[in-house]
Amino acid sequence: MNEILFLEHKAYQLRVDCLQATTAAGSGHVTSCLSAADIVAALFFHVMQFDPDAYDNPCNDRFILSKGHAAPLLYAAWKELGKISEKELVTLRQFNSRLEGHPTPRFSYSEAATGSLGQGLSVGVGMACAAHADKHDYHTFVLLGDSEMTEGSNWEAAELASYYRLNNLIAIIDVNRLGQSTQTIEGYHLERYKKKFEAFGWRAVTVDGHNMAELVKVLASAREETEKPIIIIAKTIKGYGLDAEIEGQEGFHGKALPSDRLNEFLELLRQKFPEAAQYNQQEKEYKNNIPSYCEDDAKKTETKFQKSNYQLGDMIATRKAYGQALVHLGACDSTVVSLDAEVKNSTYAELFEKAYPDRFYQCFIAEQNMVGMGVGMQGRGKTPFISTFAAFFSRAYDQVRMASVGRVPLRLIGSHAGVSIGQDGPSQMGLEDIAMMRALPESIVLYPCDAVSTHACVGIMHGYDKGISYLRTTRMQTLVIYAQDENFTIGGCKIIKQTTQDKLCIIAAGVTLFEALKAYEELQKQGINVTVIDCYSIKPLPIDELVQAIKAAGNRFITVEDHYVQGGLGEAVCSTLCNQSFESIKLAVNKLPRSGKPEELLVFEGIDTQAIITAVQKLL
Amino acid sequence: MNEILFLEHKAYQLRVDCLQATTAAGSGHVTSCLSAADIVAALFFHVMQFDPDAYDNPCNDRFILSKGHAAPLLYAAWKELGKISEKELVTLRQFNSRLEGHPTPRFSYSEAATGSLGQGLSVGVGMACAAHADKHDYHTFVLLGDSEMTEGSNWEAAELASYYRLNNLIAIIDVNRLGQSTQTIEGYHLERYKKKFEAFGWRAVTVDGHNMAELVKVLASAREETEKPIIIIAKTIKGYGLDAEIEGQEGFHGKALPSDRLNEFLELLRQKFPEAAQYNQQEKEYKNNIPSYCEDDAKKTETKFQKSNYQLGDMIATRKAYGQALVHLGACDSTVVSLDAEVKNSTYAELFEKAYPDRFYQCFIAEQNMVGMGVGMQGRGKTPFISTFAAFFSRAYDQVRMASVGRVPLRLIGSHAGVSIGQDGPSQMGLEDIAMMRALPESIVLYPCDAVSTHACVGIMHGYDKGISYLRTTRMQTLVIYAQDENFTIGGCKIIKQTTQDKLCIIAAGVTLFEALKAYEELQKQGINVTVIDCYSIKPLPIDELVQAIKAAGNRFITVEDHYVQGGLGEAVCSTLCNQSFESIKLAVNKLPRSGKPEELLVFEGIDTQAIITAVQKLL
Repeated sequence: MNEILFLEHKAYQLRVDCLQATTAAGSGHVTSCLSAADIVAALFFHVMQFDPDAYDNPCNDRFILSKGHAAPLLYAAWKELGKISEKELVTLRQFNSRLEGHPTPRFSYSEAATGSLGQGLSVGVGMACAAHADKHDYHTFVLLGDSEMTEGSNWEAAELASYYRLNNLIAIIDVNRLGQSTQTIEGYHLERYKKKFEAFGWRAVTVDGHNMAELVKVLASAREETEKPIIIIAKTIKGYGLDAEIEGQEGFHGKALPSDRLNEFLELLRQKFPEAAQYNQQEKEYKNNIPSYCEDDAKKTETKFQKSNYQLGDMIATRKAYGQALVHLGACDSTVVSLDAEVKNSTYAELFEKAYPDRFYQCFIAEQNMVGMGVGMQGRGKTPFISTFAAFFSRAYDQVRMASVGRVPLRLIGSHAGVSIGQDGPSQMGLEDIAMMRALPESIVLYPCDAVSTHACVGIMHGYDKGISYLRTTRMQTLVIYAQDENFTIGGCKIIKQTTQDKLCIIAAGVTLFEALKAYEELQKQGINVTVIDCYSIKPLPIDELVQAIKAAGNRFITVEDHYVQGGLGEAVCSTLCNQSFESIKLAVNKLPRSGKPEELLVFEGIDTQAIITAVQKLL
Repeated sequence: MNEILFLEHKAYQLRVDCLQATTAAGSGHVTSCLSAADIVAALFFHVMQFDPDAYDNPCNDRFILSKGHAAPLLYAAWKELGKISEKELVTLRQFNSRLEGHPTPRFSYSEAATGSLGQGLSVGVGMACAAHADKHDYHTFVLLGDSEMTEGSNWEAAELASYYRLNNLIAIIDVNRLGQSTQTIEGYHLERYKKKFEAFGWRAVTVDGHNMAELVKVLASAREETEKPIIIIAKTIKGYGLDAEIEGQEGFHGKALPSDRLNEFLELLRQKFPEAAQYNQQEKEYKNNIPSYCEDDAKKTETKFQKSNYQLGDMIATRKAYGQALVHLGACDSTVVSLDAEVKNSTYAELFEKAYPDRFYQCFIAEQNMVGMGVGMQGRGKTPFISTFAAFFSRAYDQVRMASVGRVPLRLIGSHAGVSIGQDGPSQMGLEDIAMMRALPESIVLYPCDAVSTHACVGIMHGYDKGISYLRTTRMQTLVIYAQDENFTIGGCKIIKQTTQDKLCIIAAGVTLFEALKAYEELQKQGINVTVIDCYSIKPLPIDELVQAIKAAGNRFITVEDHYVQGGLGEAVCSTLCNQSFESIKLAVNKLPRSGKPEELLVFEGIDTQAIITAVQKLL
């Protein structure tokens, strides 16, 4: 059958290209490419329906390389599609090349940055959800390595795929039996993968991953599935195409073949696949199943995001203001969706669910998959707002980190920040979240103290597309201190109290702003004037405003925050301003907290009104 | 049967206590306690073999409350065992009480801090592994909530439990159908849980979780299992024991019952369980199956940890020195075990495996479970050293955070730190790890530059038991610069270059120390003398030494590090020293890196020799 030989030829060519690229680079995972070459050939040149010349067509099938270390295979496929030259292919892993060691968006045909394993399936779940939401027919394909199947995130994704009946999601496991340093847990027991996926509600099929006719049949029929997500468990051989020295052997993971033996190995490939090697490419031009260009239904409705209508003096938790702002934003932009990890009644994502049930995604207690889903949805034109307890984003930090590598502008909302949550105790307190989120390139970190500023921050996040944006919200109710027409900006702050007699500047954010304001009142009684700043933009910092205010206040400042000292507001401010001749004290959470009343815990950690007053007195 | 009635009475009493404690606290997850009360009664007063009066007996069965929000139930059980008074029980969630909202080690009968869901099973896997290693007969019981079963970490644990044939591990799912804000994914489909666990190689049994006779039978026979880990899937009702207003209803998660209705609810309990309520406790004293006290086989061998024997001028990667040091430590202390996430040939944990195959735990690519396993093993007298790529600890940050809440002195080793890994690209680069690990209370962060100091750091970590200790290692080979008899300490540093003419102090660690030393040579040629400090102890910082050295060097300093600027060495130093009148520049990774040669990437990020020289010139 000519079509099969054509595909075998493509697989052969991918193998040749992977050898050449990795040997030229002097590193790379060539054996992991060789096991999956037939699968990728079958997908790219037969099964998948997409237009390489119109990659932005919303109706193209999508391919996610979860086993990101097989990046050369992805690049080789796009070389065969005419989007990479032979010359460029051998720039693999070079500093100026867009062909990185693991796929990143610098190569624009990557659907996601991968390379931290066990993340691609979640991205696929997000894309498949977006397809359903937009009533698009495209399918999402995810190529998984067998080693990565031990990552629990895959089972989170499997569960959600089944829950959302993603009949448009097709995952393939390249079961080559060998991991980096040892055999996989399941080895060649394909039936074990099958049983697991079936138990998670998927249809599961096994196949010989090097039999092109079988592969094409199985993959093509998977694309016709109407009920469930499908997993195709392909038995393969690591390094397939080379000889017994390497094929199926341990010790060759992540090792490029030596350049002085490249020709020998290329000759091996020719001998192994004689017909495919000799196939005349001209006989069949690439002519895939190209879908007609379709318009994206989910166009923005483009209503302007309005200011909030909270009244000065209202008491409302910022987490609730988040939920209310999101409802409003939902009316302004139909691409906005809400993802929540089974705490919607705590984060107030439930308000959005009530307003837009079809645009709310219950992600259950599976934070890793939730963030990965968000990456996939963002990639398909949605604007996800992703919420859980601030503490539990630590569960998905690798996914957030990879979203950052992938330059995905995810919008994350962590509620129940700090010791001020009280009785539930330290397991529920977000105390490392600012440190985590600040550490990512291009991220912004916003920590508003009241409902008006929270509302504004949601609008800011909506407009921010350079990286991760993080909103930190508070459990307890706080006073509305801003008028509705107040402006808030990235890198902004608000000087709440200031006189020309100020002796010191207090820099606070979130709950501690109210402690600072109480301290201000007390200090006034003692005849001490201080500046009080609401530093709601923790990253980037309002450096000029802070410097100016501190200089005007005797060159002294105190930072006070409900977060561990490391990586928090205080370190950010103090390290940024350390070349100024300022005197300062950092008040932050320094001890492992415990259960108790919020006010007791603020005292325990020395971030309460009295601690501020004491620090002021110490500095004066 | 009298025994059953006795247990039903205990369950009744637990329910009464949970109501009283949570109502007194005004918060708490009483309905989540009520669903599991029968299970806990059966375990604590019949099935488990342990001596409440000799809790340190290594042969006691162990109980982990993975659904940590049911903490009042745990406390109530220990009240019935005579270790908590009625008076203390109602101090639940108060600031001075050891009975926190979720269990922490402040209550000494907690086996682990829980409350971030999906972590208990991993802890159980670690304990069960320790039991096997020590040839102890005790069993480990883990009580799971059904909501938390969506956490992928559970499936990582399930996989490993099966791989290590943990026939001494018994987990119970309290299937009460209701999560915090919605119904669980599986609802009452008990057979779905069964299928999943069976697919993961467990024996699985379903049971009516409110039928004491059945429960006792199933749990007792599970303790006789010899082949596999067992999951007992118990169908329960949330709020069981109250009436239709609350039983099995949504909207009561995490809500204490109002105090003005407490008597009414207590009366309901009496009506629901009339015989159990009237049972005369005196009829049967608590007389559990108490194992005889057994000695722990795994006594430390107590050989002294010796200095390394690297020679000045040797080239060796610190990751390899880590592996070699661990082999040596293994001979000094038989409790030392190594856990690695399928990168043993990268982290060099493989050296330990070769030396002590029985003490090496291959944890496959499942970092969350690996860290949780470590917590369990530490709890049972082992001293785990846990290694993977620095980047991939981000995957387990929640587990590390919870270990910190649990005051567990876990020893973590992150290899392949920084952009200096080169071609593999940003997904593999640990660039947030210092920020992550610094942010934990009582943690220490060590980042040695050469083999001698790495070896010493392993010894330091072995002796550190107050919190998390983190060792950051480098991929590339580096020069041995320290003599074998050099001393290294927590909070120490090494002044490598210093003269009385120094104009500036360069503070570096790890790979950047060598850039600093090259800059030193160049600057010397230009007639500029600088101090160079190896700040291998990033937390705690050697503050006095730094201040002294900087003061002696013109009050100027530069920090240079292969880590994102936020939360790293530079922020730590600058924010600590910000009240000094120093001039400084922080050199750190500021841009999203990419694939390339290590030296190209150091240049790209401005942390190379030339960048240091330029910064020096700028400050002078």
